[in-house]
Amino acid sequence: MLSGTTTLIAHLGYPTHAFKAPMIYNPWFEAHRIDAVVVPMGVRADDYREFFSALFTLTNVHGALVTMPHKVTTTELVDDLSRAARVAGAANAVLRRDDGTLVGDQFDGTGFVRGVVRKGFDPAGRRALVVGNGGVGSPIAASLAEAGVAALGLFDPGAGVSDRLSGRLLDHFPGLEVLTGSADPAGYDLVVNASPLGMSDTDPLPVDVTRLSPATFVGEVVMHRRITPLLAAATARGCPVQVGTDMLYEQIPAYLEFFGFGSATPEELRALAPLDD
Amino acid sequence: MLSGTTTLIAHLGYPTHAFKAPMIYNPWFEAHRIDAVVVPMGVRADDYREFFSALFTLTNVHGALVTMPHKVTTTELVDDLSRAARVAGAANAVLRRDDGTLVGDQFDGTGFVRGVVRKGFDPAGRRALVVGNGGVGSPIAASLAEAGVAALGLFDPGAGVSDRLSGRLLDHFPGLEVLTGSADPAGYDLVVNASPLGMSDTDPLPVDVTRLSPATFVGEVVMHRRITPLLAAATARGCPVQVGTDMLYEQIPAYLEFFGFGSATPEELRALAPLDD
Repeated sequence: MLSGTTTLIAHLGYPTHAFKAPMIYNPWFEAHRIDAVVVPMGVRADDYREFFSALFTLTNVHGALVTMPHKVTTTELVDDLSRAARVAGAANAVLRRDDGTLVGDQFDGTGFVRGVVRKGFDPAGRRALVVGNGGVGSPIAASLAEAGVAALGLFDPGAGVSDRLSGRLLDHFPGLEVLTGSADPAGYDLVVNASPLGMSDTDPLPVDVTRLSPATFVGEVVMHRRITPLLAAATARGCPVQVGTDMLYEQIPAYLEFFGFGSATPEELRALAPLDD
Repeated sequence: MLSGTTTLIAHLGYPTHAFKAPMIYNPWFEAHRIDAVVVPMGVRADDYREFFSALFTLTNVHGALVTMPHKVTTTELVDDLSRAARVAGAANAVLRRDDGTLVGDQFDGTGFVRGVVRKGFDPAGRRALVVGNGGVGSPIAASLAEAGVAALGLFDPGAGVSDRLSGRLLDHFPGLEVLTGSADPAGYDLVVNASPLGMSDTDPLPVDVTRLSPATFVGEVVMHRRITPLLAAATARGCPVQVGTDMLYEQIPAYLEFFGFGSATPEELRALAPLDD
């Protein structure tokens, strides 16, 4: 129960109504008798820098989960950044260390990669295509690079988006083969939709599924529905798939370790807080 | 359950470890299916102004409970103050109104007075002595004045403390008889210990109990233990008494009304969150 001894993890974003983390972390904290709570805090972009600075003057704040639209700004507000956060150009977690300094990290990509590895797909030496190179695609690309992919295809409709991500990747992973400019999934072992396509019924598919090999693993970040049109089409072709919420459940153990709360399994988290069943 | 739609009431003070409000409000919110939560936030005095300003940029903050050491500073940070808060020179509740402006109010005294009235003691026309004229005694004096006492005795060991409170009282209640400089309880219908005396076993009694009439109602604000040495001595003389936590449970319905969450009874709150039984 929330009390004067409870450690706060601020959940920073706007709007807040679709936040899922509190419904996953808080039951887990309760089940494990950990005196901590994730508190949703709605912060508009214009107010973020001031609020972020004030937040970490609180004596009972241990860290923050950061979501839209603050992940990029956060990289400018912390004392240190992990490699994944530097490559992604975005941070979605902040820890206040014992000495008072703030470190930013990035677990969207970690969650995606942990999920595919758990499903038997090892990215090391493989070829992966990431469609959508923004706030979610960038950290996934960074984590795939950390996991040792041989080649990364990047595609984003925004001008220069893929090239900027490519530059950051090559700064940190000079041996990586990076290809930009095509969403053609042919020849890839892993295809990731990290674009918002699939959130609306009228969206086109993010890739041409007729060009998908049945051996290609297809991952999704859209969690608006469990089986998106892309996942339905990929499954119909025989591809192994990963649903959007798996990234969420898989990244939470990584956050819990980062914040020093121990660890958890995705299965345990999904059982405690079944968000998409 | 805490989610992205939950309304936050910040509980601002330092240190936080003895905060009691979250353990009373939150079970009540849950029992009444009200999507709101009191969140303890430890703020040091030096950080308060900046944090207070940033706090009310949050889109999901509805108000704040304010405790030590910020009650006086808060009067300078809001747009409007209730009369009780002006007389007390302190605010312990802040509401963000629909137009975005902030109003400060004061319910420590309300809670004390609601409690004695519920026990059959009507302050109107009576003589009351308030020992300790600081952060708790000032609002109790203000609420007793609002409840229509004929005379108020004020005593505080701090230089000028009683006189400053007397001045504020007389500004707002020009017909009130105010006496300062004596803690002698003789001749009073109501005697209130609003000093910290009683928190430690070695404290002297706040008043000379041999001078208490058995008809005098004795109220306590110390909630460190349920029956303080003063209350034990008063009870032994036959005086009716009010324990410290009654002020707490009695003031919460006033806060709930102020924040627009409906109302509650002290009995219901005590049953949900029995802090001193």
